[in-house]
Amino acid sequence: MSSVRLPGPFAMRHGGNLASVEIVYETWGALSPAKDNALLIVTGLSPGAHAASSPGDPAPGWWEEMVGPGKAIDTDRFYVICVNSLGSCWGSTGPASIDPATGRTYRMTFPVLTIEDIATAAHATVNALGIERLKAIVGPSLGGMTALAYAMLFPPAVENLVTISSAPQALPFAIAIRSVQREVIRSDPGWKGGDYVPPGPATGLRLARKLGLITYRSAQEWRGRFARERVDVRDPTAGTFGIEFQVEAYLESNAKKFVASRFDANCYLYLSRCMDIFDVAEHGGTVEAGLGRIQARKTLVVGVETDFLFPLDQQQTIADVLRGHGRDVTFAPLASLQGHDSFLVDFERFSPTVGNFLAGI
Amino acid sequence: MSSVRLPGPFAMRHGGNLASVEIVYETWGALSPAKDNALLIVTGLSPGAHAASSPGDPAPGWWEEMVGPGKAIDTDRFYVICVNSLGSCWGSTGPASIDPATGRTYRMTFPVLTIEDIATAAHATVNALGIERLKAIVGPSLGGMTALAYAMLFPPAVENLVTISSAPQALPFAIAIRSVQREVIRSDPGWKGGDYVPPGPATGLRLARKLGLITYRSAQEWRGRFARERVDVRDPTAGTFGIEFQVEAYLESNAKKFVASRFDANCYLYLSRCMDIFDVAEHGGTVEAGLGRIQARKTLVVGVETDFLFPLDQQQTIADVLRGHGRDVTFAPLASLQGHDSFLVDFERFSPTVGNFLAGI
Repeated sequence: MSSVRLPGPFAMRHGGNLASVEIVYETWGALSPAKDNALLIVTGLSPGAHAASSPGDPAPGWWEEMVGPGKAIDTDRFYVICVNSLGSCWGSTGPASIDPATGRTYRMTFPVLTIEDIATAAHATVNALGIERLKAIVGPSLGGMTALAYAMLFPPAVENLVTISSAPQALPFAIAIRSVQREVIRSDPGWKGGDYVPPGPATGLRLARKLGLITYRSAQEWRGRFARERVDVRDPTAGTFGIEFQVEAYLESNAKKFVASRFDANCYLYLSRCMDIFDVAEHGGTVEAGLGRIQARKTLVVGVETDFLFPLDQQQTIADVLRGHGRDVTFAPLASLQGHDSFLVDFERFSPTVGNFLAGI
Repeated sequence: MSSVRLPGPFAMRHGGNLASVEIVYETWGALSPAKDNALLIVTGLSPGAHAASSPGDPAPGWWEEMVGPGKAIDTDRFYVICVNSLGSCWGSTGPASIDPATGRTYRMTFPVLTIEDIATAAHATVNALGIERLKAIVGPSLGGMTALAYAMLFPPAVENLVTISSAPQALPFAIAIRSVQREVIRSDPGWKGGDYVPPGPATGLRLARKLGLITYRSAQEWRGRFARERVDVRDPTAGTFGIEFQVEAYLESNAKKFVASRFDANCYLYLSRCMDIFDVAEHGGTVEAGLGRIQARKTLVVGVETDFLFPLDQQQTIADVLRGHGRDVTFAPLASLQGHDSFLVDFERFSPTVGNFLAGI
């Protein structure tokens, strides 16, 4: 894991400056002498820069099956960079970082975070590595928004674009879900207006994660996977409303792991909100105008039929609008059962879809 | 509003007895001398027995547009009864009632509530009115489950059956949503293990209701209704994560009203859980066997395409299985935009669908 310190002050899109920004990243493969084989991965809300294992960190990464020698994102060919988003808590500057002006953790004094800020910090990081133009940028979920913003803000810097289960703007259903998640965290007395001592609002974070999981997967998947199966043994101390169904045990186990990962609650709030705010129409007045700024030679837009958080028709919109601007677009609607999270699990579909596209650039 | 006191002890399906059960109900229209024109309405989770206005209570009821003279549920023709569910807090015995054995509120000592218990108490109430056989039973949502249970448990007592946006069994997606809602309530320090002083866990109830609302409506409806509209004025004291989008203001306003209605949090927990538990397959081993117990002459099964909590294919299952048993079934899949709650708002579709069916029985 490496990091760059970006020259401050870093001006935030919705006001405020960060005196100093550090962005953590990892790389795989080798940068060509012409520096023309860089592929940047921008991430979803929760992962850090460790997308795949490496000699320096042999632990499996969050996209281990997709990134490596001979894999869909082929590190024999590309110099792959993955950045930890601005605003996150896995090394990059965010609400859990120390504000150099005060010597204290930013917490709620961190300025409003936008997707564009994340993209701008990622772009500055890439530049700091001596790279002017990315061979490709790849982003799933929130990362897909970041990839769109990157390509809109720095059009010549993106040669090829891959968005996965993303959106050109947040719609009210997704905003509502995220709003309730944030309020669950903020209502936990352990949150203390953001001034908690870690681990802080563990209950709120656990419940927000459960609600997230419900929207990250699909009802169809769970029907096949859990049906109405009961847990083998009920906790006798849990009372009438303890865990009875397998699906409840699954939520509990996954959400506990998330809390155990020590994801910072304030960072969660900021990263969650920046997705609500995102709207490519802010870049020119309409979605068409915003996406019209993109100059990528080829674009792959991947979506999943069972995704109801970033629904397929939003992927179709990205593809249609870019095509309307004369861009070369591959639209890949996938029949994955696992909803929004399919890119993390359905490699049978995602590996060839992303791999074939990248092989052609 | 009237009530009957059912002779105790009332044996609960999952164990335990209630020493005494009171069920509150309202009626509209006149019972025929042959007592053969009774139509029972069983309700969703939150409403009480006041389905429509009446001389005794002129306030609009929760199904005002559907119940009345000349309306879909025609009180000129039917003697309409609406019962407040066992386990609810609008007059019928439930967790917020006094346990006569202790003189104290039941709270978490209330036995596990099932849909079958609600149906059994409703049936006993109807019998107490001197009615042996219902001309029809009509139930939306949880009430549709209750109607199915009533028709399975007391087959000769139901001449015609109407289920609306219901389910033959709870599926894991709906269980997961409700499980998180309950945990949000139980995690509110104001819940105090159920031993709160009213209003109790108002924050938990408010958030559970917001989550409920998200699943009661549809993403499609909200896209048209709210899009990305901002609120006119932001609360300056609310901070970075205050209400910014119209959809957030809508959730807040509706959820506050729900809390202001003083719905009892423990009752909410019990009524929510009884939907998870419900499975017609418990009545004979399979869904087919369970629904095979129903002897209704005619059945109307109504569902809504945009309902993702009680999805349309579950309505299709009810219809298909009953048809497989040789029953006369009308299946009405409606194109309402408003999701699960459509029966409360889309009267343009629901009035003729239910009205025409009832006109033909």
